[in-house]
Amino acid sequence: MKVLITGFDPFGGAKINPAFEAVKLLPDTIEGAEIHKLEIPTVFKKDGEVLAKAIEEQQPDIVICVGQAGGRSDISIEKVAINLMEARIPDNEQQQPLNQVIFEDGETAYFATIPVKAMVSKVKAAGIPSSVSYTAGTFVCNDIMYRLLYLADKQNKNIKGGFIHVPYLPEQVLDLPIGTPSLSVETIAKGLEAAVAAAVTTDEDQNVAMGTIM
Amino acid sequence: MKVLITGFDPFGGAKINPAFEAVKLLPDTIEGAEIHKLEIPTVFKKDGEVLAKAIEEQQPDIVICVGQAGGRSDISIEKVAINLMEARIPDNEQQQPLNQVIFEDGETAYFATIPVKAMVSKVKAAGIPSSVSYTAGTFVCNDIMYRLLYLADKQNKNIKGGFIHVPYLPEQVLDLPIGTPSLSVETIAKGLEAAVAAAVTTDEDQNVAMGTIM
Amino acid sequence: MKVLITGFDPFGGAKINPAFEAVKLLPDTIEGAEIHKLEIPTVFKKDGEVLAKAIEEQQPDIVICVGQAGGRSDISIEKVAINLMEARIPDNEQQQPLNQVIFEDGETAYFATIPVKAMVSKVKAAGIPSSVSYTAGTFVCNDIMYRLLYLADKQNKNIKGGFIHVPYLPEQVLDLPIGTPSLSVETIAKGLEAAVAAAVTTDEDQNVAMGTIM
Amino acid sequence: MKVLITGFDPFGGAKINPAFEAVKLLPDTIEGAEIHKLEIPTVFKKDGEVLAKAIEEQQPDIVICVGQAGGRSDISIEKVAINLMEARIPDNEQQQPLNQVIFEDGETAYFATIPVKAMVSKVKAAGIPSSVSYTAGTFVCNDIMYRLLYLADKQNKNIKGGFIHVPYLPEQVLDLPIGTPSLSVETIAKGLEAAVAAAVTTDEDQNVAMGTIM
Repeated sequence: MKVLITGFDPFGGAKINPAFEAVKLLPDTIEGAEIHKLEIPTVFKKDGEVLAKAIEEQQPDIVICVGQAGGRSDISIEKVAINLMEARIPDNEQQQPLNQVIFEDGETAYFATIPVKAMVSKVKAAGIPSSVSYTAGTFVCNDIMYRLLYLADKQNKNIKGGFIHVPYLPEQVLDLPIGTPSLSVETIAKGLEAAVAAAVTTDEDQNVAMGTIM
Repeated sequence: MKVLITGFDPFGGAKINPAFEAVKLLPDTIEGAEIHKLEIPTVFKKDGEVLAKAIEEQQPDIVICVGQAGGRSDISIEKVAINLMEARIPDNEQQQPLNQVIFEDGETAYFATIPVKAMVSKVKAAGIPSSVSYTAGTFVCNDIMYRLLYLADKQNKNIKGGFIHVPYLPEQVLDLPIGTPSLSVETIAKGLEAAVAAAVTTDEDQNVAMGTIM
Repeated sequence: MKVLITGFDPFGGAKINPAFEAVKLLPDTIEGAEIHKLEIPTVFKKDGEVLAKAIEEQQPDIVICVGQAGGRSDISIEKVAINLMEARIPDNEQQQPLNQVIFEDGETAYFATIPVKAMVSKVKAAGIPSSVSYTAGTFVCNDIMYRLLYLADKQNKNIKGGFIHVPYLPEQVLDLPIGTPSLSVETIAKGLEAAVAAAVTTDEDQNVAMGTIM
Repeated sequence: MKVLITGFDPFGGAKINPAFEAVKLLPDTIEGAEIHKLEIPTVFKKDGEVLAKAIEEQQPDIVICVGQAGGRSDISIEKVAINLMEARIPDNEQQQPLNQVIFEDGETAYFATIPVKAMVSKVKAAGIPSSVSYTAGTFVCNDIMYRLLYLADKQNKNIKGGFIHVPYLPEQVLDLPIGTPSLSVETIAKGLEAAVAAAVTTDEDQNVAMGTIM
């Protein structure tokens, strides 16, 4: 089995992106599956092109993209990607789309096809906080997740795909408001490894309650 | 023009739901539109049946459902409803669906058809914090929003629909962790009135950035 | 019985300070006590001079100063003032003291002499969130509280004194990060009225647990 | 030079306390100073007796106590300890004092005598979030800090003393509300080491602004 795992490059003036920093620390095999790592540009549309090329070349069974969710405290496994580009800041090529669809012929949304609950459970079993998230936002993280699931839906029915959001690194929050959470890159990498392990080994997702109360 | 605005009844052991308490305070007309108010049971599926019946009888032009988002600090206008029931607590008839679709023949998601950005801007212009939210959760709030937009999509193409989440009332947070936000029912009602006014008077939504940075 | 209640003027570039806005809404008598209201400049040292003059003239039995705690969600009754001026931003006369004592001959700290727990309980009984706080910060709020309690300790043994922190108003958080709490000026005023009522009517403070778990 | 650094044992039903877990990871010397480590019982009064005995035996130059501040996100260096025991939960010997002084003949408060700002700066320079805190709470953390500074004030004028609060470990927040911050024990230990290094090497504290804006 092959897993392609990606992380974005730094954006918004940052010098580092915890996503790819953590991805780089992953071992080369997890639960017997080969792990292929890829850095993706924080650029609408181009992110999907780079990803599609890698999928074409590597033919992975599972594709998991990883991005930074500044302000979150845990490893959040995303459930859904929506057909929307709505940027509050410019991407790395100065694009700032507002209220635009990603693909005219795409669904309004796609659900992740990786086992999100099993992944949350496995990350927590590794001692690292984790939850299912029901929004990947509207910036490039949602964009790549949507493009991945669109591609899988249209062309590569056998690929399981999804997205994981990770917190800031401690060094990123030094000048942010007191109270902003962070986790070390080692902790994040350990969480990602557990999540990938669950994706590799789980046939059917768990039937435990991981919803919201609103 | 007719607006149907709904609020849920109390749930999860609470004695009050800020949603319908605030809805009750709305005037009978806003920007010339008739305002019809309806309390909806916090029950999966039945919420949609009660709503469908009221729509059938009243033939509104705009339908806005309102619910409580405990822990949020502002009036949040929801952008998207997803085809998922995933309850962390039982509803008011002891149902607790996990990972179930709402309608087999529904889209994975529907976007709100009310002008969410114009509504946010108008609420803020009234001096009340507001934002676009990209998740209505997975409990009954998302459920009613999805059922509304499904119904509009399948049968009532001319209805504009959407959902608004409101914070706790001050009296609800007395024994919750210090730091839990709340707003008075009068403030919430004032925010809802501004949001409805924007929905009534806006033909095309605004083109301002209201996305996320993740 | 006479109560002197003060609120700071706006600072840090703000156009409004919720403290004095709420104080202005208080009735002229609470539980039979005369309420005297005073706006205080957000200026180290001068705040205390203005307060001392008013105390001299009015001879109040109780003095309660009120200030803004941006980011807090409730009416917090302060327990302690410390002998420290440490400003992160300049005050309204461009002073920015660092690590300076307020009075060379003052105690390191003074405890409030108003019944802080009874006040918290009464505010909560009015349906408004409240807690005891164990830090009034190091800016002008702590400064006035310290100067008040120093004065009472040195000269006016019979005055009961203390400080109340209040949240932002909704209109102040429109452009602050999503999640920043606020309360309407009416809600804050209602909370202050309950707090003052408790101060006026309580002889001995309550013996209930209002500590921290750290 | 000798540094005595202490951490509390687990309390409130927890199986672990990040304070002593991190202390255990410290090296035996930091900037040339000998590091002595001590676990302290989470028990009012007894905490101080255990500490006093260790000080008597070891004659340290610097004493830094460390405790858990569940919910905080950074390494916070405490500025002040107050003469108050006010417990929201029982300690490890089922004591739950309310509104009691620690020492009848003690000051209302003592300021830390370690260089709090230099310590914050050094922890941040190591890439770990840190801030000065102006409340150590009212439970056993404040208790030990107060007893340490009282002892230094009354008997051991040459000891520099203070307290550091650390966040939860990731494994402690698995079932706490989403959003609760944590840091790995390695990150916390690295932060403590930087803080101790600053305490050992700093003669005069920094003159930079680390106050509040309330």
